[in-house]
Amino acid sequence: MFHYELLRTDAGSAARRGMFQTPHGSVQTPAFMPVGTQGTVKGVTVDQLRATGAQMILGNTYHLALRPGEDVITDLGGLHTFFGWDGPILTDSGGFQVYSLADRAQTEETGVRFCSHIDGTAMELTPERAIAIQAALGSDIAMQLDHVVALPAERAVVADAMRRSLRWAERCQQAQTRSDQALFAIVQGGLDPELRRESAQELVKLDFPGYAIGGLSVGEPPAAMVRALDFTVPQLPANHPRYLMGVGRPLDLLEAIARGIDLFDCVIPTRNGRNALAFTDEGPLRLRNQCYTRDEAPLEADCPCVACRHSRGYLRHLFQAGEMLGPILLSIHNLTYYQRLMSAARDAIEQDVFAAFHAARLSGWNRGARSELASGGCEPSDA
Amino acid sequence: MFHYELLRTDAGSAARRGMFQTPHGSVQTPAFMPVGTQGTVKGVTVDQLRATGAQMILGNTYHLALRPGEDVITDLGGLHTFFGWDGPILTDSGGFQVYSLADRAQTEETGVRFCSHIDGTAMELTPERAIAIQAALGSDIAMQLDHVVALPAERAVVADAMRRSLRWAERCQQAQTRSDQALFAIVQGGLDPELRRESAQELVKLDFPGYAIGGLSVGEPPAAMVRALDFTVPQLPANHPRYLMGVGRPLDLLEAIARGIDLFDCVIPTRNGRNALAFTDEGPLRLRNQCYTRDEAPLEADCPCVACRHSRGYLRHLFQAGEMLGPILLSIHNLTYYQRLMSAARDAIEQDVFAAFHAARLSGWNRGARSELASGGCEPSDA
Repeated sequence: MFHYELLRTDAGSAARRGMFQTPHGSVQTPAFMPVGTQGTVKGVTVDQLRATGAQMILGNTYHLALRPGEDVITDLGGLHTFFGWDGPILTDSGGFQVYSLADRAQTEETGVRFCSHIDGTAMELTPERAIAIQAALGSDIAMQLDHVVALPAERAVVADAMRRSLRWAERCQQAQTRSDQALFAIVQGGLDPELRRESAQELVKLDFPGYAIGGLSVGEPPAAMVRALDFTVPQLPANHPRYLMGVGRPLDLLEAIARGIDLFDCVIPTRNGRNALAFTDEGPLRLRNQCYTRDEAPLEADCPCVACRHSRGYLRHLFQAGEMLGPILLSIHNLTYYQRLMSAARDAIEQDVFAAFHAARLSGWNRGARSELASGGCEPSDA
Repeated sequence: MFHYELLRTDAGSAARRGMFQTPHGSVQTPAFMPVGTQGTVKGVTVDQLRATGAQMILGNTYHLALRPGEDVITDLGGLHTFFGWDGPILTDSGGFQVYSLADRAQTEETGVRFCSHIDGTAMELTPERAIAIQAALGSDIAMQLDHVVALPAERAVVADAMRRSLRWAERCQQAQTRSDQALFAIVQGGLDPELRRESAQELVKLDFPGYAIGGLSVGEPPAAMVRALDFTVPQLPANHPRYLMGVGRPLDLLEAIARGIDLFDCVIPTRNGRNALAFTDEGPLRLRNQCYTRDEAPLEADCPCVACRHSRGYLRHLFQAGEMLGPILLSIHNLTYYQRLMSAARDAIEQDVFAAFHAARLSGWNRGARSELASGGCEPSDA
């Protein structure tokens, strides 16, 4: 039931305009998925989420399996019903969260043993279990379990984790039971061109409906991530979607789109929003700054989101007063900003002007950063 | 510009159906005002607030004057623009918050000296200052500064505070500068029929556009509050609205409407919502209770609010997981519940069946309470 179509490649870059169909509707790419970690995008109702322009969301298998448990979600009608989101959903495999959140995670060939970060319960996540949980959740796209290593790491460690991820990809494929759920593989191999190539080529032999690039945005400099995309993306087949996991800032998204990436997820828009940082085409605004106290302007004059019906002065007040509505409104604004950025990127690709669009956005963000440095009134805040 | 019209009095009770007009629109009474303490009803956007059925909201003068300050709100276009709410707004005088929140509040004839609960700054609130702040905020209805005493209290203390409140009412009236802002007086006098009568009669002589009953819901038993209404409301003129300040639970609202009250405000729907308690016609549900884990039903089958598009199991999960969306959705449900209760009360008065409506609701709430006690699975929670 999953089907990807490459609609157009930009004349001046590797940026792609595509779309894929899922049992819960289609997604125009490049696309950004808001992260619904625990069955909710933090602070945002599904109506508000749809109004941001979001087409598809991501759910975290690790969090949902721990609480409330996939059996509870099944009893409550599956993840779409539970969440109240009737559009496409992608679930990760839980691998990344185990490495980053769980206590005492130990990887063996069978899987990962770990202790829950909620109550310390000893648990195991195997490729088969990751697929079974995701089958129970009923997401439209499931991810293979992979072995993530923090960078920098020794080549032998990265190679070992990459090859284990290959074996786990095959086990995940064999464990699949649902024909209405597409399974994406994850390319690993750190910052090493040879290892990335081996990973991509071996996964392509297994023939997955989509390919993710994992193991980036895990501590390496942004330039290193971009280089990794330079040598990894060309290894992936053009007729399948490419998903860059856990990335990133607005500029990271455009760099990745320019290299042929189709799909993204990241907590940055909501996490930064909760910390009073608002994204704009003129760079980020740190709303706690004194200079916004009496600022009647909205965050962005042409933004249609509910936050932009208010003044910056009001939004600053909400954060100063510790009111929940501050994080809510800035999360909505930032999610809207990301969706508008993706929409503008799709338009630019359709018109073969992605490179110019990319340069114009970088210029605006840089101008904003310079202006902020030059303004004595706007000190860097805790955001 | 303020105008109240009594449309009908219920055949079997003192319940009244009325309406009043303000510069920002009309309000059908009986009406309930959600509380927007610091320029926001906690966790709820103005779109969501309007969707609950709210006609008018309350802003807290004490909080807004302390942070961001009424001068900032004036610079940002006044309270309606600041809040983003273009409907009617009532502001309290700050008196009650000074008594309940400020440090070292000392009342003299001039006014109240106190220290800000935010940073300890020494401040003074006089009748003239309370009116000046409210004039700067630009609310549709302003409240006089009154002297509130906690109950129980000695008769001499209650009498002294009531008579000071009378003198302050006159000073507030003289301090008024805006013709587009109605000033309501506040009847004081604790639980003493003589003192309440004196307060009401003296205020009526001063001829205010509306009368509030203050100094209730400050520690006395609910039955004592109802008795106080029994002897206070008849002292108030029929052709002016009557506002019972800071009350209350759904059953308190119906008891007060039955005695001729037109207007209410209270933090109970939002505060209890944030603590996982949902109001229903079958009594409150405590969503943290284990018994809701796999409950597929909405909070109320016929409720149109966004929370009721989800299962109780999902809502419980949000609270168990510490997700902001739990407090948000239950605040919206409870505000919707209160507005639907007011709407049903207005309908019942129009059909001369308020007493039967009142009895039916009490019966439902009692049935719910009994059922909760009988159910072993539902333990009382921290709500």
